[in-house]
Amino acid sequence: MTELLYGRQCVREALIAGRRRFHALLLAEGTRPAPIVSEIVRLAQNAAVPISRIDRSLLDRQTAQHQGIGLEVGDYPYVEFTDALQWLERRPQPLVLALDLVQDPQNVGALLRSAEAAGADLVLLQDRRQVAITPVVSHASAGGAEHLRVATVVNLRRALQQLQQSAYFVYGLERDPAARPYTEVDLTGKVVLVVGSEGEGLRRLTRETCDALLSLPMRGHVGSLNASVAGSVVLFETVRQRHLAPNDSA
Amino acid sequence: MTELLYGRQCVREALIAGRRRFHALLLAEGTRPAPIVSEIVRLAQNAAVPISRIDRSLLDRQTAQHQGIGLEVGDYPYVEFTDALQWLERRPQPLVLALDLVQDPQNVGALLRSAEAAGADLVLLQDRRQVAITPVVSHASAGGAEHLRVATVVNLRRALQQLQQSAYFVYGLERDPAARPYTEVDLTGKVVLVVGSEGEGLRRLTRETCDALLSLPMRGHVGSLNASVAGSVVLFETVRQRHLAPNDSA
Repeated sequence: MTELLYGRQCVREALIAGRRRFHALLLAEGTRPAPIVSEIVRLAQNAAVPISRIDRSLLDRQTAQHQGIGLEVGDYPYVEFTDALQWLERRPQPLVLALDLVQDPQNVGALLRSAEAAGADLVLLQDRRQVAITPVVSHASAGGAEHLRVATVVNLRRALQQLQQSAYFVYGLERDPAARPYTEVDLTGKVVLVVGSEGEGLRRLTRETCDALLSLPMRGHVGSLNASVAGSVVLFETVRQRHLAPNDSA
Repeated sequence: MTELLYGRQCVREALIAGRRRFHALLLAEGTRPAPIVSEIVRLAQNAAVPISRIDRSLLDRQTAQHQGIGLEVGDYPYVEFTDALQWLERRPQPLVLALDLVQDPQNVGALLRSAEAAGADLVLLQDRRQVAITPVVSHASAGGAEHLRVATVVNLRRALQQLQQSAYFVYGLERDPAARPYTEVDLTGKVVLVVGSEGEGLRRLTRETCDALLSLPMRGHVGSLNASVAGSVVLFETVRQRHLAPNDSA
């Protein structure tokens, strides 16, 4: 299969990550010179990727967000869950993000961008009824998806149970009376964070598999956050607990 | 001026907040019964808002995201900055979010949703070259904008200086070698958080006015976050420092 990645940051990150097959870099005629465009051309040349100057309208037909750049690539390089489990054992504090049927590609992309920035080691997706890593998702992740290890599994609950058998603690992000404030739990060590769909939250079986539920305290009237924002806040709380010095006053 | 708010959560929050003039609630024929729809109808009845059943195509012409509900309203109820300054003095730990020419309505809406959820007391917008609180922004904020106090100012820098004269500490969110990790600074007390546009960051004069710059540590390859996600992470760090108990391990 050939897919078309688009947008400057996404294409640059795909070339830097170097994990896909690269068929051709497409440069729309009339694209203005910019340092990032020169960098992309240099990356493509170094990887011996053919470069085609094409009419802008060919990219316009695919998306409005191409910024004059497209990259024809092979399939997204998913990793095998069992291989990933072994690899994770060599990480000092493995952090896994699991998506429980998150449907909106923009939300999935935003979560992957945050997961990559927070240093997550693995992303778990169920292979059915869950948005996969499409070019739209990769673009929405600002190319973060190109760097991340992502595994698809037939049954998310079973994968979470396997992680628990390897001593992972599985936290589900959920507004629930039983949920604990996300800052009051230990997010160091071997951690899985599960994010559900914006409308439905976690599925019942997923929720029941979690070792604990986490919530963000809401201090306003609306009472909910966008799923990708909530997930990002908790991902960065893991960074804070693992890597950052506390401030003097807190 | 009459504007059309749309979407169930946005319309419900506008009615609950009760700060706009309400001209009419529009219900698209064929909208399926749901608890939130009944709640909206009850709120409209209690506020003596006329209810019209209309053809769905009339809403379709405005937006694809109406969910069968529209609310014709008067202008957004901005507050005066000088009034807000006085009101803030009565708040225990006033928190102000300032947007420095953030252009994308979805990002502005997402920031307002997070600001409302984090209990921010005031949002500052420059009145030119900054997206205002349009129905698109209100919808993207899930109605959070309807509850928030938002003031527009002619000159954002001068407003920040006025806040500094009232003993506010002004933090700019910026990737900069001089920026400090956001978790290592004191975000309690009187705080202004300034978020710049995604492409450009803070303007030079804004940046120079800040008392300190904050950054989020990036542990991956991509090196940047969506502006609304980054702002949301810092907004919730203020909540953590102000209101939450630390976990035992961190």
